[in-house]
Parts: sequence; C-alpha cells; structure tokens
Amino acid sequence: MTDTLIKVDLTKSPTENEMIHNRWHPDIPMACWVNPGDDFILETFDWTGGFIKNNDSADDVRDIDLTTVHYLSGPVGVKGAEPGDLLVVDLLDIGAKPDSLWGFNGFFSKKNGGGFLTDHFPLAQKSIWDFKGMFTSSRHVPGVNFAGLIHPGLIGCLPDKPMLDMWNAREQQLIDTDPTRVPGLANPPSSGTAHMGKMTGEARAKAAAEGARTVPPREHGGNCDIKDLSRGSKVFFPVYVDGAGLSVGDLHFSQGDGEITFCGAIEMAGWVHMKVTLIKGGMAKYGIKNPIFKPSVMTPNYKDFLIFEGISVDEAGKQYYLDVNVAYRQACLNAIEYLKKFGYSGAQAYSILGTAPVQGHISGVVDVPNSCATLWLPTEIFDFDINPNAAGPTKFIDGSIDMPLSQDV
Amino acid sequence: MTDTLIKVDLTKSPTENEMIHNRWHPDIPMACWVNPGDDFILETFDWTGGFIKNNDSADDVRDIDLTTVHYLSGPVGVKGAEPGDLLVVDLLDIGAKPDSLWGFNGFFSKKNGGGFLTDHFPLAQKSIWDFKGMFTSSRHVPGVNFAGLIHPGLIGCLPDKPMLDMWNAREQQLIDTDPTRVPGLANPPSSGTAHMGKMTGEARAKAAAEGARTVPPREHGGNCDIKDLSRGSKVFFPVYVDGAGLSVGDLHFSQGDGEITFCGAIEMAGWVHMKVTLIKGGMAKYGIKNPIFKPSVMTPNYKDFLIFEGISVDEAGKQYYLDVNVAYRQACLNAIEYLKKFGYSGAQAYSILGTAPVQGHISGVVDVPNSCATLWLPTEIFDFDINPNAAGPTKFIDGSIDMPLSQDV
Amino acid sequence: MTDTLIKVDLTKSPTENEMIHNRWHPDIPMACWVNPGDDFILETFDWTGGFIKNNDSADDVRDIDLTTVHYLSGPVGVKGAEPGDLLVVDLLDIGAKPDSLWGFNGFFSKKNGGGFLTDHFPLAQKSIWDFKGMFTSSRHVPGVNFAGLIHPGLIGCLPDKPMLDMWNAREQQLIDTDPTRVPGLANPPSSGTAHMGKMTGEARAKAAAEGARTVPPREHGGNCDIKDLSRGSKVFFPVYVDGAGLSVGDLHFSQGDGEITFCGAIEMAGWVHMKVTLIKGGMAKYGIKNPIFKPSVMTPNYKDFLIFEGISVDEAGKQYYLDVNVAYRQACLNAIEYLKKFGYSGAQAYSILGTAPVQGHISGVVDVPNSCATLWLPTEIFDFDINPNAAGPTKFIDGSIDMPLSQDV
Amino acid sequence: MTDTLIKVDLTKSPTENEMIHNRWHPDIPMACWVNPGDDFILETFDWTGGFIKNNDSADDVRDIDLTTVHYLSGPVGVKGAEPGDLLVVDLLDIGAKPDSLWGFNGFFSKKNGGGFLTDHFPLAQKSIWDFKGMFTSSRHVPGVNFAGLIHPGLIGCLPDKPMLDMWNAREQQLIDTDPTRVPGLANPPSSGTAHMGKMTGEARAKAAAEGARTVPPREHGGNCDIKDLSRGSKVFFPVYVDGAGLSVGDLHFSQGDGEITFCGAIEMAGWVHMKVTLIKGGMAKYGIKNPIFKPSVMTPNYKDFLIFEGISVDEAGKQYYLDVNVAYRQACLNAIEYLKKFGYSGAQAYSILGTAPVQGHISGVVDVPNSCATLWLPTEIFDFDINPNAAGPTKFIDGSIDMPLSQDV
Repeated sequence: MTDTLIKVDLTKSPTENEMIHNRWHPDIPMACWVNPGDDFILETFDWTGGFIKNNDSADDVRDIDLTTVHYLSGPVGVKGAEPGDLLVVDLLDIGAKPDSLWGFNGFFSKKNGGGFLTDHFPLAQKSIWDFKGMFTSSRHVPGVNFAGLIHPGLIGCLPDKPMLDMWNAREQQLIDTDPTRVPGLANPPSSGTAHMGKMTGEARAKAAAEGARTVPPREHGGNCDIKDLSRGSKVFFPVYVDGAGLSVGDLHFSQGDGEITFCGAIEMAGWVHMKVTLIKGGMAKYGIKNPIFKPSVMTPNYKDFLIFEGISVDEAGKQYYLDVNVAYRQACLNAIEYLKKFGYSGAQAYSILGTAPVQGHISGVVDVPNSCATLWLPTEIFDFDINPNAAGPTKFIDGSIDMPLSQDV
Repeated sequence: MTDTLIKVDLTKSPTENEMIHNRWHPDIPMACWVNPGDDFILETFDWTGGFIKNNDSADDVRDIDLTTVHYLSGPVGVKGAEPGDLLVVDLLDIGAKPDSLWGFNGFFSKKNGGGFLTDHFPLAQKSIWDFKGMFTSSRHVPGVNFAGLIHPGLIGCLPDKPMLDMWNAREQQLIDTDPTRVPGLANPPSSGTAHMGKMTGEARAKAAAEGARTVPPREHGGNCDIKDLSRGSKVFFPVYVDGAGLSVGDLHFSQGDGEITFCGAIEMAGWVHMKVTLIKGGMAKYGIKNPIFKPSVMTPNYKDFLIFEGISVDEAGKQYYLDVNVAYRQACLNAIEYLKKFGYSGAQAYSILGTAPVQGHISGVVDVPNSCATLWLPTEIFDFDINPNAAGPTKFIDGSIDMPLSQDV
Repeated sequence: MTDTLIKVDLTKSPTENEMIHNRWHPDIPMACWVNPGDDFILETFDWTGGFIKNNDSADDVRDIDLTTVHYLSGPVGVKGAEPGDLLVVDLLDIGAKPDSLWGFNGFFSKKNGGGFLTDHFPLAQKSIWDFKGMFTSSRHVPGVNFAGLIHPGLIGCLPDKPMLDMWNAREQQLIDTDPTRVPGLANPPSSGTAHMGKMTGEARAKAAAEGARTVPPREHGGNCDIKDLSRGSKVFFPVYVDGAGLSVGDLHFSQGDGEITFCGAIEMAGWVHMKVTLIKGGMAKYGIKNPIFKPSVMTPNYKDFLIFEGISVDEAGKQYYLDVNVAYRQACLNAIEYLKKFGYSGAQAYSILGTAPVQGHISGVVDVPNSCATLWLPTEIFDFDINPNAAGPTKFIDGSIDMPLSQDV
Repeated sequence: MTDTLIKVDLTKSPTENEMIHNRWHPDIPMACWVNPGDDFILETFDWTGGFIKNNDSADDVRDIDLTTVHYLSGPVGVKGAEPGDLLVVDLLDIGAKPDSLWGFNGFFSKKNGGGFLTDHFPLAQKSIWDFKGMFTSSRHVPGVNFAGLIHPGLIGCLPDKPMLDMWNAREQQLIDTDPTRVPGLANPPSSGTAHMGKMTGEARAKAAAEGARTVPPREHGGNCDIKDLSRGSKVFFPVYVDGAGLSVGDLHFSQGDGEITFCGAIEMAGWVHMKVTLIKGGMAKYGIKNPIFKPSVMTPNYKDFLIFEGISVDEAGKQYYLDVNVAYRQACLNAIEYLKKFGYSGAQAYSILGTAPVQGHISGVVDVPNSCATLWLPTEIFDFDINPNAAGPTKFIDGSIDMPLSQDV
C-alpha cells in the first residue's frame, strides 16, 4: 500500500498545514523525505487553497487576493539528489479528492489579473464543472462533456539561491519598465501572504521577503500549465539543491493549450501518485536547462478536430511582426465567433477553449511579418455536430443558461 | 481519369508558364475553370521555381533572389463562387513529381532572409532529402528517416482589391517603423520579378506594382505553412472574388511546426489532387474570417515524443512579457543542445527540427511574465534511442558528415 | 456525491452478501433499483470471490472449485425498463479496491478447466500483478510494465425464462456429445454452490437448479471478456425482463484478446461507476441480438507492435479447414517461442499474452483451407527492445525468476 | 530514380508475361535479381489477371475459372539469401496503376468458391470502387467513402521442395475427407492453367503438376490477406531457397479483417515499392516459423467504432464449442442486420464489411462453450450518423441502387 506522505484537509486553511507552501525559496525545509525508487502519494489543495467555491456567483473570482497563490504540497526531499542531477518523476496516477468531485474555471477581472482575452472579457466570470468518473460537464456551459486530461499545472524543484536571485532580478527589471500597469507585468515577492511551510520566525520572514512567486513557469518547470504533463507521463527535472525539493499543486482536471482563461483550467483539489528516481549528473550529460518530458500512453483520444487559424494582425487591423501571441489570440477569437453561431455566449465559448483538451499549435514563425497559430477544437466533446455544412449552423444552445458574472466593485 | 489542369515542366522557367504566378492580385485571370464537385490535379514547381539544386553546395541558398518566390499554380476559377462563400477544398492526394523525388531544406543567410534561429545560424546551409516511397532521409543528416506528412505550404484564394490594399497598407506601416532592417520587417510589392500569369502589357505592369507578396499568411490563408493541411484534410477558404481563384504551391514533403528553418520545410515540386465544393454565404453563416480546416485521417502516427520546454527568457537572460516566440525559440535551442549530445552538429539538429514532424505547442500564455512553449520531438524517427537514461547519451553520429555551408560574399 | 449501491467486504465470503449472485436466472430479485439517467457505483469481488490469494503458490489455482464462479454484483433494477428495450450503460470509471491493489493471472490444470494452450501448459501456475497507479508489473514476470486497460470481464442483464431454457438446452446438447470430456465441453447448472442473491427456501432451490452458469458469453453479453469494454466505453444491452437486471463482476486490470490463459486476465476486486439510460424498443429498432458497444476515448495508446501470424495447421502438422482457433493458437505459440529467445520461460511468455493489451485479429477466413490469425504484441511494454535485428536477440531475462507451479494431486 | 524491375501491361494476358507466375514451386526461375539494401518497384496485375471488368454485371465474378489465380509478380532473387535467413521487406509504398484507378469487390457463387457468408449470399454479386486520391467510393454502394489501407493480399518467398511436398500432402489429406464438397475443402495442384514464369517444356510440365496453389496462406506467408501489411510496414519472411524468391500480388486498395467477401477486398492492379535486407540465420535466432511484421506508421486513423459481438451459436441456434469462425460469422450477420435498418441491402452491407477497414477481434476463446468475436465498424466512413439513439435509425439509403447480381447458370 502506497504511503500518502502529505495529506490536506479541505475544511481547513492551507496556511495551517506545514507541508504546504506558496513561494519558491531554497531555505524551505523538506516536508518529508523519500528514497530514489520510492513511489508515494501527495494530496494537494486547489491552487487558491479553497477560496473559490462550488456556487453560482463569480464574486470569489473577482475578490481573490492573487498574492496567496499557488498552494503547493512539498517540498519532498529525495535522498542522494544533488545539484546537477535530473530528478525523474513518473506520474503514476492523479485524481480529484473523493470529497471534492468538482472544479472551477473562470476569468479574472481585468483589474485583478485578467487573462488572454481580458480586453474582450474584462469582468469576473465563473463556471463549475462536475466530475463523473473520467468525464466532466458544467451546469454553466451546456452541451459539452469530455474526458479529463488530468495533470498538475505546477510541479518542480526548489531553486538554489543564485537562481532565485536571478529570477527576482530579471522580473523586477521587467516590472520597472511599466511599474503601474494593470494587470502587472510580473509579480514581485510579497511577504504578507507568503506561506513558507515549516519555517518560522526570522528565517521565515527573510525567506518570505525573497521568495519567488509561483505564478510563472521558470527554468525548474514550476507553473508550466502543460496539459500533457498528465497521469502516465515521465518528467526529467533539473536539481538545484541537495535533496531536490520537489513540490506539486495546482491540479487540473482538464485544460486547453495556453490555459487562456487564466483562472484557470478546471481547477481542483486532489492527489498525485508519483515515483522518483535520479540520473546523476544528468543536466550536463544531456545539456538540460529546462525540464523535458515524455507524454503518457493514456490520454483522451479525441481525433476529429475543427482547426482555426490566426495571424499576427490584431482585432484593430494592426500588423505585428511574427508575434505568435497575437496570432493565437486571433485563432481563439475566431473559434469563439464560430461557437457563438451554435448559440453559445462568448463567455461560454471562451470557457470551453480554456477547459477542454484543445490544442494550440505554433504553425508558422518565419513568414514575415505574419506568424500563424492554430487552435484545434475537438468536435467529439460536443453533444451535437459542430462541423460546417451547406445548410449553415443550427442553434443547439438556446441561451437560457449563462455563466455567472460579477461586476467590478 | 482525373484531369491535370495545370502542368509544369521542371526543365523550364516558371516565368514561361502562364498558369503560374508569384503575386496576389484580384486581376490575375483565371488559369482555368472548374465546376463545384469537380476533382482535378494541379502540378506545381517548388517554391523557388527550381532555383535550388540537388547538389552539395549551399551557394544557391545564399544567392537566391527572394523577390522571385513563391511560384504558385493557378488561379483556378470555380463556377458560381461569389464573395462571401466558403470554398471547400478536399486535398485528395499530394505527391512529388516522379522525375524529381527529392527536396531541400536550408537556412538563409541572415543577410538574405534569415530564419527563426538566424542569430545562431547566420550563414547559408543546405540539406538534400531523398524520397523512397513514403519515407525520406538525407545524405547530409544521418540517422533519421521518417514518413512524409505531405502538404502545400501555400494555398488560398485571390483577395479582392480592398483586402489587397489593406494588406499592403498595414505591412508598409510596419516596414516604416524600421525601413532599413536586415532582414526586413515585411516585403513590399516588388514589380521586377513579378510573374502575373496570363497578364501582359500595362495591366500587368499595374498589377505587378500592387500585387501582394506571397510570403506571409493572411486572411485568405496563403503561406500558412501548416503541416497538418496534409493530403486527406479538408479546408474551408473565404472567397473574395467571383470564381474564387484558388492557387496552390510551395509543396512540402514534411515540415516541423513553425517551419523554423524558413528555407524551409522539405521543399519539393509536385502535384495536388483536389476536389472543390461551395458553401454559399458560408463566411457569414459561420462567422469565418480566416480559413478553418479538418485534419486528415491519414498522417504519420509517431506517438513517442521527447518534449522540450521553453520560457520567455532569452539566451542572454532577458525577461520578456508573455512572448511565445521567445519561449518557442528556447524550446528549439534546448532540443538542439540535447541532440548535439548524440553527435549531431547544431545545423543538423536545427535541420531536423525544421523538417521532421515535430510539434510546437503553445502551452501557457497567461502566467506572467513567462509564456511556456513546448517542442515535441518524435523519438521514432531516429535510427537509435534518444531517450535519457542513467548512463548518459551515446554519440551515435560520428561527425564525419555535415551540411554544406556557404560563407556570405 | 455518487452513491455506492452495492458494497463488498473482501474479508468476508461473497455468499454472505445478498447483493451478489453467481448464476443467471430471471427470478433473482433486484438487489437495488435506479432510475434512467442515474449514475451509481457497484463494488465487486474478484471473480473467485477471494479464493485466489496474493502469495507465491499456485495451489489455490489448482484447487479452486470452478462451480463457484463468477461472483457478480447485482442485479440492478432500472425503472421503466421492459423487454425489447436497449439498456445503455456508460462505464464512467472502473478501479481496483483501494485495499486490494493487486491482481492474479494463472493457468488452470488441464484436469480443472484448462485453457487455450492447456496441452502445452497442463499444470496450475500463477502470477501476481501489483498496481502502481495506472500501471502494473509482476514479481513473477520480470521486464514488463504496462498501463491497465481496466474493464469488467462480465456484464449483462438477466435472461427471461425462454432464453434461460434455450441456453441450458443447447449447452446440454453439446455436453451430451462427449459427456465425460476433461475439461468439459460446457458447464450445466450446478445447484450446490449456487448463490442466488436474496433468494431463499424453495424458490431459491428451484432457481439454483435451473440457473445458467456464468462462464460463457451469451446473447445478453455476460462473460464476454472483451478488453475493450473499458472505462469510458458505452454498451447497449438487450433487455429481457422488467427492470433489466444488470449485473457486473469479474473485473480485469488488463487482458489480452482472447483471455487465453483463462485464469484469467489480471483478475481483481474493484468497483464500477456507471450510468444507465434506455432506448425504448431499441432491440427491434436496430435489429439487435447481441450487445453492441462503442470503445472508450481513453485507452493505453501502445502503437508499436510486433505481429505474429498463425495458420490453421496445428503443431503436429495437421491441416484444418478455415479454423481460426487453430490459427490463433499457432500465432500465440509463435509469439511464445519468440519471447523465449529473450530469456522468458514459456509460462511467463504465455502469461504476458494473457495479461498485456495484446490484440488478436481475425485476418483471413476465406482462403481455403487456411485461416490466418494475427497476434499483436505491443513492444513498448517491455523494459528492453524486443525488435528483431541482424545481431540476434539478447537474453535480457536471466531465468532466475519463474512463475509458481503446482503439480496435480 | 528507383528501377521498376517488373512491368505489367494491363492490355495483355498475364500468361504472356514471363515475370508472372500463379503457382508456388522452388524451380520457378528468378524473374530478376537484387542486392540486399536495394529498393525497387514491381508492378502487378490484379489477382485475376484482368478477368473482372469495370462494368455493371456480375457475370465475370460468376464465371471466373478460379484455377487461374493468383497472378504474382516475381520471384525476385536476393543475392546472398540462404535457407534459414529472414528476408526483411520494407513496403516503402504501394499504389494503383495510374491507368486503372478502380477496384472490384464481389461474392462468388456458392458453386464457384463461395465466401464466409455464402449460405446467406449464394449468388455472384459485384461492386466497383473508384479511387480518388487516397479515398474510394462505389457507384454500387452509396453513402460510404474511406481512405484506403493499401496492401498486398499475397506476398512471400518460394518454398523448398520438402515444404512444397508437405503442403500438398496435408491439403490432399483434408480434401480426401470430403472430396466432392462444393466449394472444395482445399485446392490441389492444377496443371492446366498453371503459369510457371520463365519455365518451359518438360520442366514446366513437371513443376506445374506439383506447384502449390496460391489460395491459402502458409508458413511462408503467401495469401495472408492481412490488411495491416500496408505501405510503411516491415515484414520478416522465412527464406527456404537460395535467393529467397520473393513474389507479390493480389493488391488491395482496402479490406476488412477476414476478407470475408473472398472476391475479395477492393482488388486492383498496381505497383509495390519495396526494399529488401537480410537477417542471416534469423529463423533460428528468433525461433521464426511464420512471417512476423511491424505495422506502418501511416494508416487510416478511424477511431470511432460501433462494435458488434458474436458468439459461437449459429443462426439455427446450434451450440458450437469455442468456435471463433462461428462467433465472427454471427458478429458479421449482426452488423449486416444493423446496417439494413439504415436502408442498405444485405449485399451492400456485406460488401462494406469486406472492403472498409473494419477490424475483427478474437475477444474470448476460453469461456466454454462460447467463443466471443467482435467486428469493429468505423462509423466515420459513412456520410451519415449510424450511432444508435433514442429516436431509432433513419433510412438514409433509399434502396434505389443495388449491387449487380448474376444467377447461376
């Protein structure tokens, strides 16, 4: 019987749990230790530590203090791991907490985080997704039902001090280019809501003041939000500190490439069953800077896609130079416009792109001045046929249901 | 027996062929006409019209005049097609010309076009790829052999005049922000090498002076370089002019997402067997701005990938704000570094990423300030095992072979 | 929260549980009732009700009384279901019991049931398979590790009386052609070990004397042992009695096509999460005699196979007329011979074919006198490369481990 | 440019071509020689050598003399190949002859060959299938269109004399058990219509009298009719004579598992591009008796199946003992009954099962007395939705078109 090394109680605050942390810092003590070859289970909070509720209001999405996220389980020490090694993590299985078989997706207000299409959806909105075995559907987004590509949005090892300093320095430089921007260009350390695991006193205060925020992905992996890092995949993480210090959280029942809705995928509390081994000196042997991974042999096998193209000319007709972000944004907007023809609200269509196993491909990056990006929408997740035909679309969705929206206050 | 409506003679210049053109302009006369429901075959030159040769020198890649490209076959008029329709194109089959069973891949000199990694590979280089049935391999890049995901890099309908004007205007605005940049930010009309199909005299001169270059993808599709637009796929193109005016060219035997090498994929001369039908008024019915498409049921089924992550911090450590291009560039550089451990030169590794069916995914675009992009490298295309293991990599490639390189002159 | 309608206690005998039965009879009372549209969970014993243990002896496989099997959970009554309907069952999820994360595979002695290759493996043998998340491996069969294609070996609705009588009649006719054969040609009703759910007294005795054995698949589905009836699939069952009476059991963590080892797949205790709906009058509407089903979108995606052919000439060289069984047996024997070259014992190789997601295809059934069958062995389940090459095979398995064997007594 | 070593002229009789043969005999001289490592092209007749025509009458299917088939191209000698080697054949590509872009499927009269369902379809019928690029459809079977899984039905090396004698002996023994059966249990040598390649005179007469018929698959492979031996696959053939003597023919544009219609798949004339290498002594090294192979990376990717079960109880209700043939026949009949609900004639439904990429799986072979077989029908090949739903089926096919049928004479 595999041991559950970290347990979480969803009725309590994550800040009460010493095996949870929400900042990256080399001084955070290991929550527990394992040996190479061990398999074990870690339970996790949802990324907000339970702030977002299973209800029909988006007020919590509007009001959340984003300096609190993400609540991670760990760090797990791996005996014998040393800087320069690769920590090989087999994600043997991932699931929702049995007492919490639901997740949320939402858009942050433009004033509080925003998202990829925040200019089009500037207000807080939320949808709740229920899990029935392998599948999920939402009372706020009718007509779709799909198998979950379950994965951790955030996983990685502790940075050492030089790497931490580098992160903070380069991000501050960026912030300094437009320090009052809303939403901010990056998130600097924020001591107030920092949860540093077992740390206490002065050491805690010092680390909290330095600890890197968990929002961006970085060299160690971290908040990559890669949907394909799913149960059954194998990840090779760079090790920077003795013991590696592996942490995980931000579990997603499903997500589209890009996690465009930002809040976020289908976010859930859950557990991860993993096994760790080491490749000694692996970083130099294989020239590794960022993690590499191999996909799972078991993922939802949706094969019939409707694919939307976008180019790097924005909604106002402005020409950009080989900008994939602009191109992918256009592909997303094109898909939303298409889905509206079947009766979806724009918000519902946006939510589908954020939650379902849609793919985002970088299709062309050299044909000046236009990049081309494609969004792959699986047609099989819909209860009805969304393919184009000579007769034109049918409004299968009657518009009687929409996603809760909360005005800014 | 299906008719071949456009034939090309590879021993002659494409400029001698009236059914070929290399600019987009609504006044180019239809090369031929078909009825909705017809299937037909069009032969095509390679995108350079035969300038790049099957030899062991990169001089042609260095010396090419890029104002000459791309040589397209068409436009094909479809009876009854009107502005606002969708032209549905079934790509029934695509192949190389039987007398030309090879293709080329290369990097342009930074002084003449460059490419996605031009700062790392600033000089002209070339590799030649031979086709053996479904498969291709290169005498310049040992150790790889893969099935071709054959597709047209460039396909789309003629723009109308307002759209043409919009293209030229917005691209010129971009050029004007840095008009002396090398390589240029975009390519303005260029009359000298324009080939306007059947047009002659003054009309030709006027159209040549206005005709949009074929380099970028635009609203009509065009040079999307989407590898998944392969034989067996179905594409829905916006129609802007009476008769639609469908043109195609720039065939690729295989390509990786992004076509990062720019010159280009595995470029070839060949033929396309296609069928056309119409969805009358389809643009408004489905809210279509850019083409949409459905992938083929028949593509190379490589399933075991090694996946490289990249984030939007560049090689110098500079932090960018949610820039997918920077992130994908890092993922590509990470993959190249990895492949070098097995004995490949950087150029060979770069060439593999540009030619093999690698995928580029937009994995995260909201976790400020870092985007995350992933490059999916199929492991099954290699003659040896490239997976990481505890013992470290073996140098299967001994370095005795490299890609021809030509110094700038 | 989904209700668990039937619970099983693995520390107790299945015969103590009134919601369990091991015979098919229309008079078995419904264990519980649900409405169309409901989803619910049923726990199940392993098919032997716990007789086979997690140890290193095959004595239990040798000694089992096969009149006791299979212990099924149900029948579940579906309100409104009537004869002639189709009961649509969505298998939302399936798993092992958390307190029993292992399964067994074995060969029965030829004197007690035998198996597909019983002439080659006439004695009882057993292997134990441990589950680590999605994956399984065995301490008795080194060098393989694979993702489970979890499925119920046995699922179906209660027969009505005429169907029951037909089953018993036609099977008795077969038995009568060779009544003393070992193993028997079929299994007649066997009252002694019958467990008839809630039935008691005379009614129980009468039904026990008539109840069809659960061993063969029949018109209602039943013991089909179809590996592809996995979590995520959708099955359409004929309904014969009011309320349908759906029962399920004999869960497999994984199995090869044919379940050639008979005892059996990787057999386990577990649970099934399912949803039921009705197609009224569906049998006549669609001309349904046997169940039909649609496969899951989520199954292990092993794609690289080594495929073995077999023809209908037996090991002694005798020619059969278009006999697929003989052909598939030869394909299996050919695969076993091949695997022995890598160091496996014949029993281990046989066990791999019975447990891993191997496919058995009916490749040719008309080319007199030889049928052709193919066995598809996924190469990716092995820790080493089993592909043929010019150098010949390497003995990766050193023979120090074998499967427990028990001599007949 | 790859050499075409054997050419066929479809306007002439195959018997005029010395590089064609229709019997297996070790004395047939090599038609040509190649070296290990060579790739080359062989053209082939259709299996009947052009007897079946592209018209709307089934008279040719009724009247064909089945002693004439199959016309094979070869044998190709491979220098250095010796008995005991494995001949590795890479099927680099396969296609139809450009001047013959069609194929046929049919049922033989029960009096002249029959087929898997000959008791239900006892008369000669035919359907013609046109090829449009990768796809095929039939003027006799409306509503289906699918990508071809192109493959040779028949490929293998020459037997040596002892093997030939064994084949003839064991098949004659079977024939002797019911020598007057119609259709016959097997086909003995038949000198009259034998075409022995370059052989002439007495040697030819002797070999023709001994030459094994090409109908059944045997140890060398031969007429396996395995649809998955498609372009891109790699086959390992046993070698019995010096030079191997590889022959190929009976090309199929597409076929369902079992080739149940017997006449046959979608039969065509065409060409095979292949490469040969050797594994010296490979038969002993790997314990090979029958060919083994690896599937292609490129095949039609139909993933949504409707799966029909069958058990070994025949149409009359008779119980068989673990007979997969009976079970598969029931699965086929169940599928035909289902398709008739959508408007197809039985013959059209039968033809679809014989031609489309349907799979036949051996699902259970140990649950006495019933085998279970499954037929996997891809739903995506139909122009309409064939999935079951609560409303019942719609007759999309109006019955105005059927397959030509010819009464016995």
